[in-house]
Amino acid sequence: MGGKKLDNTSSNGNGTNADNNNSNNGAVGANSNNFNSNPNTTTLKITVKPPPATIHQSPVINLDRGDPSVFEPYWKKNGGKCTITISGHESLSYFSDPHSVCWYMEPELQDAIRRVHLIVGNARTEGYHVVVGTGSTILFQAALYALSSSSAVVAQPMKVVCAAPYYSQYKEQVELLQSRLYEWGGDANTYDDEDKTAPFIEVVTSPNNPDGSLREATVANKTENGGKLIHDLAYYWPNYTPITRPEDHDIMLFTLTKCTGHAGSRIGWALVKDVAVAQKMTSFMQITTIGVSKDSQLRAARILQVVADDCESKAGAFGYGGDDADRTFFGECRKVMAGRWEKLREAVKGNDVFGLPKYPKRYCNFSGRYFQPAPAFGWLECKEGYDASALMKANNVLTRGGDTFGASNRYTRISMIGREEEFDRFLERISGIHCVNEDEDKEGEEGLVVIHDNNGNARRGNGNFLHEVK
Amino acid sequence: MGGKKLDNTSSNGNGTNADNNNSNNGAVGANSNNFNSNPNTTTLKITVKPPPATIHQSPVINLDRGDPSVFEPYWKKNGGKCTITISGHESLSYFSDPHSVCWYMEPELQDAIRRVHLIVGNARTEGYHVVVGTGSTILFQAALYALSSSSAVVAQPMKVVCAAPYYSQYKEQVELLQSRLYEWGGDANTYDDEDKTAPFIEVVTSPNNPDGSLREATVANKTENGGKLIHDLAYYWPNYTPITRPEDHDIMLFTLTKCTGHAGSRIGWALVKDVAVAQKMTSFMQITTIGVSKDSQLRAARILQVVADDCESKAGAFGYGGDDADRTFFGECRKVMAGRWEKLREAVKGNDVFGLPKYPKRYCNFSGRYFQPAPAFGWLECKEGYDASALMKANNVLTRGGDTFGASNRYTRISMIGREEEFDRFLERISGIHCVNEDEDKEGEEGLVVIHDNNGNARRGNGNFLHEVK
Repeated sequence: MGGKKLDNTSSNGNGTNADNNNSNNGAVGANSNNFNSNPNTTTLKITVKPPPATIHQSPVINLDRGDPSVFEPYWKKNGGKCTITISGHESLSYFSDPHSVCWYMEPELQDAIRRVHLIVGNARTEGYHVVVGTGSTILFQAALYALSSSSAVVAQPMKVVCAAPYYSQYKEQVELLQSRLYEWGGDANTYDDEDKTAPFIEVVTSPNNPDGSLREATVANKTENGGKLIHDLAYYWPNYTPITRPEDHDIMLFTLTKCTGHAGSRIGWALVKDVAVAQKMTSFMQITTIGVSKDSQLRAARILQVVADDCESKAGAFGYGGDDADRTFFGECRKVMAGRWEKLREAVKGNDVFGLPKYPKRYCNFSGRYFQPAPAFGWLECKEGYDASALMKANNVLTRGGDTFGASNRYTRISMIGREEEFDRFLERISGIHCVNEDEDKEGEEGLVVIHDNNGNARRGNGNFLHEVK
Repeated sequence: MGGKKLDNTSSNGNGTNADNNNSNNGAVGANSNNFNSNPNTTTLKITVKPPPATIHQSPVINLDRGDPSVFEPYWKKNGGKCTITISGHESLSYFSDPHSVCWYMEPELQDAIRRVHLIVGNARTEGYHVVVGTGSTILFQAALYALSSSSAVVAQPMKVVCAAPYYSQYKEQVELLQSRLYEWGGDANTYDDEDKTAPFIEVVTSPNNPDGSLREATVANKTENGGKLIHDLAYYWPNYTPITRPEDHDIMLFTLTKCTGHAGSRIGWALVKDVAVAQKMTSFMQITTIGVSKDSQLRAARILQVVADDCESKAGAFGYGGDDADRTFFGECRKVMAGRWEKLREAVKGNDVFGLPKYPKRYCNFSGRYFQPAPAFGWLECKEGYDASALMKANNVLTRGGDTFGASNRYTRISMIGREEEFDRFLERISGIHCVNEDEDKEGEEGLVVIHDNNGNARRGNGNFLHEVK
């Protein structure tokens, strides 16, 4: 593993269903909560007290989605140069650049992509082909197609694996059409193909969604069995994490959504080393969507050029550091992200229900500073036996539960990149949640009941937390 | 069949490999060429004389693609009101309309789509859900997913059929990921599933690509075996064909590409009757691309509103006819298309190599006129035994051969919607191609050799037409 891992999630080599194997004995969280397992619990009732009064009537706070509204204030203030105008007679053709492998890619966009990577230093682009997609999501599917359909061995669908906790959508994308080319192989930590020569695909997400850890391949680097790699580097930008080196993997996926926050433009790109793979990916894009919106490509090109100009004007290319870097787009946004993380850590401090991952400080080559990662998602851990997302839901907070990431439901993912007012309301709401032992609980107080089964798994009495108040 | 069919293509109930079954004895073409089959031909040499001089050095004319540049002059002159400006802080979110089944669809786009259909009268929208896609191509795949994954019977992949000649890309899209949900079933004319209760999907393209015929379902309407329909109505606009009625099928696909010519924006839409199907299609779009470019949605909304305003200002809503309609976007573009068809028919007139389909005049409700269709593609037929696209290629004209449409290679598809100068060069070039019997051929003249095998199929002697001159 290249980076800091979440102690509890992966240190046992198996991040899935940590509740069931009772091996969760590490410390977790910046506030050093220790959640010791209690395998002997049978039908113990534990009450979690929600904030007083009528929580059920409070507005729903949706932190399930990774909608990047956090960057909107920056663009409202600084986005003037990003404005684009498109006339009625422009961009009529399907075609953009007949000289590029990716024939529908606007040359301006390719230039902007290469320039930003060079300035930020997060990925090599020399010797790479750029393939553009309607977001990086479809490029992941294009890569699966390219790697699985060009394989010499096609008797069996290629297994697609990813170390848990993994991005919840990979599985859904892989399984969508029940392809004979590839199939979901689950957690890379437990991947053990009987046929050691069978080719497979490993997805490496770094920094990882949901837990923010820096990652390297789990299986593919250890074996000689033809593992192929897709690196999803959507969050490897200095607004989230220190840039420690330019990555140079075979297939690297990026998206404007997480880089600058322009999710609505649906622009992603892949940097691809092997021209045959880039061709196959382009072919996939041709067959599924006949290219990518030119309007959004031109807008993305403009935005990335503005970001690059901004970096260069603040500190000159390749000479960032300290205050200069702090005033760039990435620096300003990092401050916002770091501020949110500080407030989140503060809110769960002294709280005996929630824990958060620790991230070590690392030196960021772009910023010229040491700093702690401030990931796009918080990977919240609950005291053992709790269903974290159910607990959140009972408090009218929508999050994405651990099981969708191939992990325990003690965890849940919360978006750190939504609107500020919603994030602040969330902090207020969870600050009021704390643990009350049954015998300590006072008559008449509202609380949420979690019933443990004899495996230590939390389950709900009547299937509806919201009405299960004492 | 709802419309005029290509005589030679489908009148035998089997448009595929017409050369092989020797049933091609109908007349074809506006210029009444009669191409009688000659099943006894064995290694007869026929010479087609290309234009004199050095055709091999002439610039390549690419009529393979349906790139809609034909409308660019109109938009250069009239596109002022279509100009849109997008600021840096706009469209950051993934989400657009939480009240719509299609949550990523911009409300302005939905409004514009419904308004244009109401004005043109080509499709009912009342009671329909709109689902937007990155072009209509991906919506075809979304529809396949929606129809096949919701079927109660999933033991076998659902067959997807379409009457030949069918759009060459359907097969490619269906087969791309080797899905277990659906598989290509080929020509609907010959579809005869042994299990009469097996559900299947029939695609109906009307007007048809490649041959411009108006179509109705071939199998689904005749049987009781649960056939589900996808109607691809990309070309059912009054710039190509008379609008005879508002269509009201279960799933109807449209695209901005063919309606207004803005292919680069990659905006398509589906009108879907059943909310569950619309939800499944939206779900497919969510998993594959997490929505559709907002920039292009907003641009498409503007363009469609400008088209609708134009129609209303010329004649008032629902009161079109004659000269008024002729001055609308659709009317102006129809004139351009009709002009090209006239020139094409002129170029092949008296030519003994090529034939073209006949289309009857029909009354267009939108235009208030009778007119002949002027399809986006020409479906060129060659004298029997010729490989039409190979012959074109030998003349440095790229076209799409009949076999890719499930039809005979005597046919080839040429784009009628490319740039004017390219189209004119094409006309000039084919005007010089004519048939020369071997015994009539004079010494020293250049010509192209087609060798017939004993099934009457044309094949090339050394695999390279370009150098196979006499």
